[in-house]
Amino acid sequence: MLLGEVVGTLVATRKEETLEGLKFLVVKSLDVDGKQAGGSVVAVDGVGAGVGEVVLYATGSAARQTVATHERPCDAVIMAIVDTWEVEGKEIYRKG
Amino acid sequence: MLLGEVVGTLVATRKEETLEGLKFLVVKSLDVDGKQAGGSVVAVDGVGAGVGEVVLYATGSAARQTVATHERPCDAVIMAIVDTWEVEGKEIYRKG
Amino acid sequence: MLLGEVVGTLVATRKEETLEGLKFLVVKSLDVDGKQAGGSVVAVDGVGAGVGEVVLYATGSAARQTVATHERPCDAVIMAIVDTWEVEGKEIYRKG
Amino acid sequence: MLLGEVVGTLVATRKEETLEGLKFLVVKSLDVDGKQAGGSVVAVDGVGAGVGEVVLYATGSAARQTVATHERPCDAVIMAIVDTWEVEGKEIYRKG
Amino acid sequence: MLLGEVVGTLVATRKEETLEGLKFLVVKSLDVDGKQAGGSVVAVDGVGAGVGEVVLYATGSAARQTVATHERPCDAVIMAIVDTWEVEGKEIYRKG
Repeated sequence: MLLGEVVGTLVATRKEETLEGLKFLVVKSLDVDGKQAGGSVVAVDGVGAGVGEVVLYATGSAARQTVATHERPCDAVIMAIVDTWEVEGKEIYRKG
Repeated sequence: MLLGEVVGTLVATRKEETLEGLKFLVVKSLDVDGKQAGGSVVAVDGVGAGVGEVVLYATGSAARQTVATHERPCDAVIMAIVDTWEVEGKEIYRKG
Repeated sequence: MLLGEVVGTLVATRKEETLEGLKFLVVKSLDVDGKQAGGSVVAVDGVGAGVGEVVLYATGSAARQTVATHERPCDAVIMAIVDTWEVEGKEIYRKG
Repeated sequence: MLLGEVVGTLVATRKEETLEGLKFLVVKSLDVDGKQAGGSVVAVDGVGAGVGEVVLYATGSAARQTVATHERPCDAVIMAIVDTWEVEGKEIYRKG
Repeated sequence: MLLGEVVGTLVATRKEETLEGLKFLVVKSLDVDGKQAGGSVVAVDGVGAGVGEVVLYATGSAARQTVATHERPCDAVIMAIVDTWEVEGKEIYRKG
């Protein structure tokens, strides 16, 4: 999984029918030091995440293993909201 | 999913039989700030997208989870046409 | 799918048994402007492509969705021979 | 599979339900010469790995082929702890 | 599939149970001109390859389509030993 920060939302009315009702969030990836890693993705929200939250997202076929995304044409899903992580004994991030 | 702009079309008469009838679109990827991200892909159209439209496309096995592409050798599908998205409270794009 | 040019052939006698009879082609990827994109791959031929032809190839699990490659350890397949494509109204390539 | 060093841990209370009980580890990837390769990932622990250990991790759908991760939205799993490896006859790493 | 040269071996005693008995090889990827491409991977051996041999390896779910790797948490497998390949009519490599 990759770390990311939810930075925005996306609306798409015309879409594959099975995607109806899903929430699309704009995510910028973070490296393990908590800095922006340069990449970004539009992910389906599987856990009720909101703008400003730091999350874990899964890509590829793993993104269809949530209740929300099962058998849907979705290749990126937010599957956890991060509370905290540490690297080499140092806390990098803690949810405010 | 990744953001992209449909920039063209592709014709391939000789192809795997199950691909018959599918429409191939040339897509340049966009980053979340709406600028071209440098990559490009040929995607199957799953939603009736046309040249000039901003779309979401899914890659990998997710690309076979649409009615059009089920069990076909397709690794990229356009599954939504984007109306609008915003990043950090600022509207980046709105369909004209 | 990605665009590529078939630039050569590869022979491998000792291989996973289920690959027997498949043709391996060396493919250099092209960007949508028709220039070499820097990457390359060895793909199984699913459509009777030959050296010099411009093709579409699919990677990942999509590469096992052709008659030739079903349930075989193959992660790249040529699934179409390109006739022509255009970008922003300009023809980039037409098969000679 | 890729080589990595476990450098930290991550806690996420709010997550997809099926991920309950899994341990998330922060992993920096290593190249085959044992140096940090620049990338990093958050992986589920499938083998009881701890901070400081050198491991192999699998990504993509392979990451769901362990007892811990079966049918869960997980795209990276640690599936082995490395004892030693060598390149061109020279030992690069041996577990201390 | 990608081209690679087997440069070493790896031992991991503590691993996901289903990986018991598999041989892990260290592989440096080659580009189609036969030069090292910069990347590397640890792959399961599916064909009896040894150090110094030039091979084809498959990644992703394709890596589980060999007898050795079926339903195992493996994302890279060597599925062929290369005899020879040519690019634009010129032989790049022939097994010695």
